[in-house]
Formats: sequence, structure tokens, C-alpha cells
Amino acid sequence: MMEKNLTRREFLVGTGSFAAGAAVGAVLGGGVFGLLDVQAAETVAPPAPWKYVKLDPEVVRKKGWEMYWQGGCMKGAAGAIITELQEKVGFPYTMLPLEVFRYGSAGIGGWGTICGAANGAAYAMGLVLPNADISTLVSELLGWYSETALPTYKHDAYAKYPTTVQSVAGNPLCHTSVSKWCDASGLREDSDERKDRCAKITGDSAARAVELLNAYFDKTFAPVYKISAETESCRACHVTRMSDTLTKMECAPCHPNAHKK
Amino acid sequence: MMEKNLTRREFLVGTGSFAAGAAVGAVLGGGVFGLLDVQAAETVAPPAPWKYVKLDPEVVRKKGWEMYWQGGCMKGAAGAIITELQEKVGFPYTMLPLEVFRYGSAGIGGWGTICGAANGAAYAMGLVLPNADISTLVSELLGWYSETALPTYKHDAYAKYPTTVQSVAGNPLCHTSVSKWCDASGLREDSDERKDRCAKITGDSAARAVELLNAYFDKTFAPVYKISAETESCRACHVTRMSDTLTKMECAPCHPNAHKK
Repeated sequence: MMEKNLTRREFLVGTGSFAAGAAVGAVLGGGVFGLLDVQAAETVAPPAPWKYVKLDPEVVRKKGWEMYWQGGCMKGAAGAIITELQEKVGFPYTMLPLEVFRYGSAGIGGWGTICGAANGAAYAMGLVLPNADISTLVSELLGWYSETALPTYKHDAYAKYPTTVQSVAGNPLCHTSVSKWCDASGLREDSDERKDRCAKITGDSAARAVELLNAYFDKTFAPVYKISAETESCRACHVTRMSDTLTKMECAPCHPNAHKK
Repeated sequence: MMEKNLTRREFLVGTGSFAAGAAVGAVLGGGVFGLLDVQAAETVAPPAPWKYVKLDPEVVRKKGWEMYWQGGCMKGAAGAIITELQEKVGFPYTMLPLEVFRYGSAGIGGWGTICGAANGAAYAMGLVLPNADISTLVSELLGWYSETALPTYKHDAYAKYPTTVQSVAGNPLCHTSVSKWCDASGLREDSDERKDRCAKITGDSAARAVELLNAYFDKTFAPVYKISAETESCRACHVTRMSDTLTKMECAPCHPNAHKK
């Protein structure tokens, strides 16, 4: 099983076709300029960040809803943005696998950790942002996810069910997000309505990521998410003075009795 | 900004070099067989799942620790597995971007949601598993992460600090994992020892993913993670009967007073 396969480039070089190709380039006097360069370049990922062109959030919103039904929330959110960039930019986005994102469904393998819509949208943001700005932008996405009444009312033209109930997740976890919606709607997690709700939030998260990216590349991005005063009072000790934790999530929902007697 | 760029394949076809290349193939009588196929194939991602060859968990463990320092926990865990597959398989793993995984650092943009080491290792598992088995395998990874005393003692040959304190996260969240370790060690989140601890867990998570994948492809994989009896008693109502939530995480740590008066 531990075999060593050649890369396609190694294979081509080994069989002499690289040299043959070069000869062709010479014969055609530049008519195939770039052929070999392309071939070589396409065996390694281009350096980060990849080229971004502004996308239409509403196109991405609908596509996210659609792709949810083809592989879940993370595939839907990452896929909505990536397939748009495949159309608008092409290579190297065309090289990205999409089925892989099924891993993030239901908060990763059913665990209810990070919402797959947020996870997938954040992945797509990481593709196009300079390293120094990734954390700031994806943090803003998660802040938006936490405090926004979702899903939006923008899906009624195509969704299975009209949006009648919104809920505020309070944090970016699938578990919390789904539980809050079940509580607000009175509907079951295993209902088709819940899946439709998550499909909408898949589109909403991808659209929000695109709005943030468009603003960033327009140089109009400014963070708006603010940690609550209640949680900042916890952070003054636990993050700053004692430094015994790491999070931006609200403290009280999981630690309702902290410092109470 | 809404420009429409050609893909490289469209570019090549448009300039006639595809036809030129075909002519060369004919001239050389098969000597460059595959050249055009390769060129076309390398503009789109091959179908999932991608080829896996068994990897050495100990090689991946060390590489995960090393790559943590080059871009964080998610990049380290995904990158340790992907770069090994780049060496052992080559294309298409060589096409995968790695800087993107910086988005998952510190539980995604500092939010402390899913541990980036688990998120990155799960991504890598999603690349090579059939769709029907992704959830089962990544769920097992998250179960292992939740109940295992980490980091392992297998990094002392190269880590900055010897492993003297282990902790059990209890769930796969960065926030909980880091908090438990700070509590057990008495050390700060913003310490270099904490980063070294997370670098080790990056390697451990990647190594565990490889152990699970090796077993899967050897047809010896069997899930061992069991949800606790206490949490199963919650799930009997909240997941099965009422279906008002979605998670596999332990309930009591965040809901200590559920059903208490």
C-alpha cells in the first residue's frame, strides 16, 4: 500500500513528452506559448491568496440553498462561493474538491460543533484573503451568525417552505442554532422544515461571507460585531488577567451559575 | 470587478493549441500519449474520493507538530496529512491550497468553536472516504478527541517542552479543550507552553485520523466511541422522542441544572 506514485509532471518529464512539447513550441514559433508553463503550473496549487472577483450575494444565497440538498450545509456554503468563482475566475478554483465538505454536516459528523454553513463559508473566505486578515474577517462572519435572526426572508421564491420563524443562535454552534430554532418554531430537528431552514442558513452564510469579501476588496470593510458587556466582564479576568480560556462565545448560556453562590 | 476570465483550458482551446497539441500527438505516433488528457484533467478536480495510501501515523504526528508553527492548528493537521499524500500520491493532492486552513485557528477566527486540529484532520478524512462513510469516521475522530488524555507523550524528541500535563477536553471544542488544559496545568492560554501543547495535539489529531483511515482501508475499522449513559438518558427524550436538538456532545457540562429544581 505504501507505493510511491509519480506526479503527472514527473510522469511527463520521465517519458520525454516535456521535451517533445518544447519542440512543438519551437516548431509553431510561439503559437502555443504558455503550454508547458500551464502544464507545470497545474500540478501545484498557486500561492495564496487566490484571485477574488466580487460576487453577487443574492446569486450565492440561492445557490447555497440549492447545494445544501446536494451534500449538506458545509458543502453548500463553501460550494456556492467556490462554484461561482469557478465560473468567474476558473482555474485554480476548478481544482477544488467539493464532496470533501460533507465532513462538516451537522456540526461535523453529527456532533453539533461549528455550524457547517459557517465552517464552509469561512473556508471560502480563507482562500481569497491575505493571511493577516483571515481571522478578522471570519471572526466577523461568526459574530454575524451568532446575533442575527436567521434564516433571512430572502428565500421564499424557491424554498420548500416560507420562512415563518426566525431565531438567534447566540453562538456559531450547530447544536445551539438548531436547538434555538426548534424551540422557537415548535418543529422537530428531524423534520423536513428544519432541513429547509438549514438550507436557507447555508445560503445566508455564504451570502454574508460574500458581502464581507466584497466590502473588504472595496476597502469599505469595518468590523461591527461587538462582544456583549456581560461577556466582556468575564473576559476582563478570564481572558486578559488570568488567561485561562480562549473563546469569543457568550459565557452565560453554558455557565449560568458562574460566581453565584 | 465582475470580469469573466477564461479557464486555462478555454484559453488553450481558444488559441488553437489544443488542436496543435493533438497534431503533435499524431506526429509522434503516441509518444506523447496522454498529454492532452492530462492537460484537460488538470483543470478540474478528479471525482471523490481521492486515492489514499496508508500513511505512517508517527510521521504525520511529528509533521503536524511542525506545521502548527507555520499556520496554526487546522493548517497543521490538514497539512500534515495532505503533504504526506502529496509525496506518496502526488496529483491531485499537489493542487490543494494549505494557507486557507488558517481560518480554523483558535476554533475559527478566535471563537473557540471546533478545535482546528480536529477540523483539519476531518477535512483530510473527507478527501479520501466515500460519501457514505465520512460522517461515521469523522464522528469517531471527534469522539476520540473528546475522551482522550491529550497531548500524547510521543512528542518529547522534538517539542519545545516535555509533556508533563495531559487533560481530557470532554468535547471537541477549542474553548473547552484549552480551558481544561489551563486548569490542569496552571499555565496561561497566552503562554508558549499552551501553543506547544496545541501543536502536539495538532500532530496527535492528524495521527489519529491516519490510524482510522488505515484501519478503514484495511477493513478493520470499528467504531469504539460510546456516548455516556448520562447523556444517552438526555438523548432518549431530546434527540429521539422530542427531537428538539442535534449534538453528540456531553449535555451536563453546559446544562448542569437541567431538570433540577
